[in-house]
Amino acid sequence: MSPLKSSVVLLGAGNLATRLGVALYEKKIPVIQVYSRTEESAKKLGERLECEWTTDLGRISPDGTLYIFALKDSALQETLEKLPPLPGLFVHTAGSIPMDLFLPYHDRYGVLYPLQTFSKDREVLFETVPIFWEANNPEDGRVLEELAETLSQRVVPLDSERRRQLHLAAVFACNFTNHLYLQATEIVEKAGLPREYLLPLIRETADKVETLHPRSAQTGPAIRYDRNVIDKQLDLLEGDPGKQELYRLISKLIYSASRESDGAAKRTSLKA
Amino acid sequence: MSPLKSSVVLLGAGNLATRLGVALYEKKIPVIQVYSRTEESAKKLGERLECEWTTDLGRISPDGTLYIFALKDSALQETLEKLPPLPGLFVHTAGSIPMDLFLPYHDRYGVLYPLQTFSKDREVLFETVPIFWEANNPEDGRVLEELAETLSQRVVPLDSERRRQLHLAAVFACNFTNHLYLQATEIVEKAGLPREYLLPLIRETADKVETLHPRSAQTGPAIRYDRNVIDKQLDLLEGDPGKQELYRLISKLIYSASRESDGAAKRTSLKA
Repeated sequence: MSPLKSSVVLLGAGNLATRLGVALYEKKIPVIQVYSRTEESAKKLGERLECEWTTDLGRISPDGTLYIFALKDSALQETLEKLPPLPGLFVHTAGSIPMDLFLPYHDRYGVLYPLQTFSKDREVLFETVPIFWEANNPEDGRVLEELAETLSQRVVPLDSERRRQLHLAAVFACNFTNHLYLQATEIVEKAGLPREYLLPLIRETADKVETLHPRSAQTGPAIRYDRNVIDKQLDLLEGDPGKQELYRLISKLIYSASRESDGAAKRTSLKA
Repeated sequence: MSPLKSSVVLLGAGNLATRLGVALYEKKIPVIQVYSRTEESAKKLGERLECEWTTDLGRISPDGTLYIFALKDSALQETLEKLPPLPGLFVHTAGSIPMDLFLPYHDRYGVLYPLQTFSKDREVLFETVPIFWEANNPEDGRVLEELAETLSQRVVPLDSERRRQLHLAAVFACNFTNHLYLQATEIVEKAGLPREYLLPLIRETADKVETLHPRSAQTGPAIRYDRNVIDKQLDLLEGDPGKQELYRLISKLIYSASRESDGAAKRTSLKA
């Protein structure tokens, strides 16, 4: 079945559901219905995708060929329990939930996991977003793969265990990184300076790892554990124990990582 | 004095010295000499900037109008102590060192602090790099400001105390952020996957804060302190106490920060 012939029912109207719905819409893959618990969200996304919407699980359309559950992790199981019997292929979009969650509820199921951070009102170039898929039978796997390839240039089959690892990595690379941006921003704002001063640095730090492994890109006082600078910076953070603890821990970890890679380099050169 | 009439002597041939030297060269501001303790570095940069080079502090040219000390923090004082008397304006480029370090050694001095991460062989669009300057007299201040404005579109006078805060913020936004990229990369590589899968996410996370304050851009399980996801992810990190400690600490800090901003929002709406 060509993805263009799929009839998608989209459950969820949050950040990911919205961006995925818009991407499907733009590729002319028919979304026939949107469900959300919140009327406002359901209506808004339904109108955006020019399709039916509902807040009632009892009224989910039985005409879907693909049901995409783009819900909060905590809501997924509960929703499956309440759902009346439906045909088609069920997929969820969560990094950390195994595919087999569907097992007690449905016979054909899988996962579509786009590795990106989504906001409702921020366009995302879906073509560049890696999409990882998994299915409980090869035929549905092909459907998911084709659908994903319609949306993105980077489509990869991936089992639940490795998807979980990828999701964990994403927490470090995105959620935790954003928190460091916040810590940096707080310091700058406390000094009475605009946070915009940091933006070229943030951008270049991200750009650098496109071509350089982050192990080689590491700079700053922590690499050689420069006690002089480190102690002075810890003093500057006095009165903010959270920032101090973070500073101390990451400095320690940077130093360990740089010693490990020095060791690895030495072992390599001994072999050569 | 127009910056084009400055004769720059550049002390240092590391990442920052190289990128600054190249930027001056491209803007046709004459660099007349490069000094580095290491012959290879001095020669390489001297050739790149088509100027004299030396490894001997006794042979630093007395013809400079501007001496830029782009040395490691730890080498700066030692270099000043060994330097024969010279004319001109002395500046350093360090975020965390007060301008008055020069006081015992020279009468005209200042700072040029470009807030960016530099690599020798990676081009940087210097026009976008914020440059902060400081000088011990207004006339030299004007020289530094003009020189900086030749290189960049964002030039700001800034005292030593606030420069120190900015540098601390930069450690969080750049050095620490890069370490999170490394942690994420290690997780992905351990799962046998290419680190490239993370790049669109890293880029979007950085892009997002161009328009959104990082407080509003925060996503992920830690915001609501989702114990279920957090505990499972901590389990996945078993055997790596560094990653676990980092995960626990940053999750806690994200949660506190989101509660603070909820509180602030509530206080604001109560007032309204």
